[in-house]
Amino acid sequence: NKLAPPLNPQTKKPAVAEDFLPIFPPALIEQEMSMERYIEIPEEVMDIYKTYRATPLIRAYRLEDALNTPARIYFKYEGATPSGSHKLNTAIPQVYYNKAAGIRRITTETGAGQWGAALSIACKSFGLDCTVYMVKVSAQQKPYRKLFMLTYGAQVFSSPSENTAAGRHVRKTDPDNPGTLGIAITEAVEDAIGHSNTNYALGSVLNHVMLHQTIIGQEAITQFGLIDEYPDVVIGCCGGGSNFCGIAFPFLKDRLEGKRDTEFIAVEPSACPTLTRGKFAYDYGDTGMMTPIINMYTLGHNFVPDGIHAGGLRYHGDSALLSQLCYDGFIGAKAVHQTDVFKAATLFAHTEGILPAPESGHAILAAIEEAEQCKHTGQEKTILFNLSGHGFFDMAAYDAYQSGLIKDVPFSDEKLARGLADLPQV
Amino acid sequence: NKLAPPLNPQTKKPAVAEDFLPIFPPALIEQEMSMERYIEIPEEVMDIYKTYRATPLIRAYRLEDALNTPARIYFKYEGATPSGSHKLNTAIPQVYYNKAAGIRRITTETGAGQWGAALSIACKSFGLDCTVYMVKVSAQQKPYRKLFMLTYGAQVFSSPSENTAAGRHVRKTDPDNPGTLGIAITEAVEDAIGHSNTNYALGSVLNHVMLHQTIIGQEAITQFGLIDEYPDVVIGCCGGGSNFCGIAFPFLKDRLEGKRDTEFIAVEPSACPTLTRGKFAYDYGDTGMMTPIINMYTLGHNFVPDGIHAGGLRYHGDSALLSQLCYDGFIGAKAVHQTDVFKAATLFAHTEGILPAPESGHAILAAIEEAEQCKHTGQEKTILFNLSGHGFFDMAAYDAYQSGLIKDVPFSDEKLARGLADLPQV
Repeated sequence: NKLAPPLNPQTKKPAVAEDFLPIFPPALIEQEMSMERYIEIPEEVMDIYKTYRATPLIRAYRLEDALNTPARIYFKYEGATPSGSHKLNTAIPQVYYNKAAGIRRITTETGAGQWGAALSIACKSFGLDCTVYMVKVSAQQKPYRKLFMLTYGAQVFSSPSENTAAGRHVRKTDPDNPGTLGIAITEAVEDAIGHSNTNYALGSVLNHVMLHQTIIGQEAITQFGLIDEYPDVVIGCCGGGSNFCGIAFPFLKDRLEGKRDTEFIAVEPSACPTLTRGKFAYDYGDTGMMTPIINMYTLGHNFVPDGIHAGGLRYHGDSALLSQLCYDGFIGAKAVHQTDVFKAATLFAHTEGILPAPESGHAILAAIEEAEQCKHTGQEKTILFNLSGHGFFDMAAYDAYQSGLIKDVPFSDEKLARGLADLPQV
Repeated sequence: NKLAPPLNPQTKKPAVAEDFLPIFPPALIEQEMSMERYIEIPEEVMDIYKTYRATPLIRAYRLEDALNTPARIYFKYEGATPSGSHKLNTAIPQVYYNKAAGIRRITTETGAGQWGAALSIACKSFGLDCTVYMVKVSAQQKPYRKLFMLTYGAQVFSSPSENTAAGRHVRKTDPDNPGTLGIAITEAVEDAIGHSNTNYALGSVLNHVMLHQTIIGQEAITQFGLIDEYPDVVIGCCGGGSNFCGIAFPFLKDRLEGKRDTEFIAVEPSACPTLTRGKFAYDYGDTGMMTPIINMYTLGHNFVPDGIHAGGLRYHGDSALLSQLCYDGFIGAKAVHQTDVFKAATLFAHTEGILPAPESGHAILAAIEEAEQCKHTGQEKTILFNLSGHGFFDMAAYDAYQSGLIKDVPFSDEKLARGLADLPQV
């Protein structure tokens, strides 16, 4: 099924290219709306990709041994990029197209900091200024992430900030507000609209972001081809959907064309179960209702998830492309608990050596559960998951887990109902 | 010239294999004393190497552009390993040979934490226990490094600790002592000698460590061969010498055989200028005078360098192999100031994206100086340096640099004279 169109937040009529022009460059708007299957990667973007790509496709032999499973487990490792995650894959082309359009500064929001770090590096590479609104509680919990962005020359505000009308409003009416991605997006968009030569960039959710991330899956297909393999199951963690769609979409093409019957699993936290408990409906992308209204799985734009350590997965909505594919049954989803995630991530670290980001731990857990299933059924499935980032900035979270300080918070129906009560009438 | 033999610290006579048996397994002692040019890598070690090797050899096109140099700059990137540095290359075989000898626990010291992190991962991989004595001031400055080791199941003591007689002695006589690598080594050795099934492991200096690290240079030769290139200059930072020797020795073979005239530069901090200001003489490897006496460049085993941010380069001595090769004129050395290092490391981060460890920043600075020289002479030199580790755990240091809080401390002749006054009479 085709996507339902995004709606203009004021008129609630289908958005046209002009609606996006105040914050995005023409080339990205064209990609956002394109029906083309493939879009060429510009040479200048490839030049920077080459500094860290192709990322390795690694077979987790030692994890397989520990699980004593007949399954073959592979992972694509995006954590060895300069920014430490897959986010750089879209930061580079987004900055490139903005620069080509004459833009001199880019604003954005960041939660855990992976996206802000990536955009800071990309802006520095192309000589653009970068302003990041970092969710206040994350900035406090992860001071190193903030210092990382400063090292790459970015300007970093804790959100809600005094720098925007939206931020000042929250600080006045709710002085203890710890910040959310929704508020930070509103601040970054307001900043971009209010300044000349300034655009806004988003690290997930939008179609052009998913497009840029498909380089992960494209590479994986080539790499599997070299060893004459193909995955039976493709797994990724899911916040807004970009690392999941990045690895899944190229394989999904084969399935949609009837060549393969690969299974796809998007893994989300139980504390923010957008795909598994949310509603497939039109909703705003931000708390301030400034973004277009998108048809997606959502928990409501005012939903505030509990403070789990996987800050990158605490978004109320999801990619429209991913949502439609889930709704149509091509992609499966599951929600998992935080303590199980850290247990799986620690087992992975102990066997494969690499310390995963808590976000990526969600994908690891699902891969392990799949491999354990194979042990019972005897199936020799080939499992692929995306290890979207390293956990070097998440040591406090691992410490909390090992000290027994992490608890799983049950997701309440009341909370869901409150979130969904705010959906816009369209 | 052949190496002068290590001496037994009690008898001061040439050490024999038996002298090392209380703390090292037979296979590593054999490697330490071997005259073989090549030693086979065991399959079990290769299996783990394969989870992260070969590491990439990357041409720094964007750094070249920024410098506007005719030189071609390549770097071997060891920072994308699970431990974040080259240290894992020797941790894995050391733990493997210890396990083969029936050892169940390994003790070690760590300064900045790169070595302790690597040994923790390797011990967990082979199922051995790991005890790390971490220099107290580093443990306070880098809490994430300590948490990293704990996540891999290691036991971590701040050194000087209450766990050894040597540590208790320092704590009693000098309660404010911030710890040094020399003291931490003494503690780790005492712990190993005093417990059954327990050995000690060292992350640098010894011959077998240099041997294990040569996989870096061996890979680089193969990778250069694929693009029909060969370096005119090979550069590495230098504390005990392991990352430098790892990349340099395989290329040095061609030079010693008269096939190439490659230049080699070991780069050390001005605050701890072992190769450039130290004496080529016999000295202890540790403050407690428990290790064999080694013929090497040294600043004296009681020398306490200023608290620079490149904690991995604050060792009073150097590899005997490297020292002899420097003494004989095959390897050059230079000492550089900390502020220049951070300036170079920041330029590298801004152009190539990767945030380097302050230690590795020393090699970057020397490579940049070499490339700038080429700009003046017009020479199109091929420059290779080893990017030994990432700087994700060093954000506080980068913050201090950007805030103008880092000062260069001049190295005093008095300090040098005091250190050298303590050399043993042999």
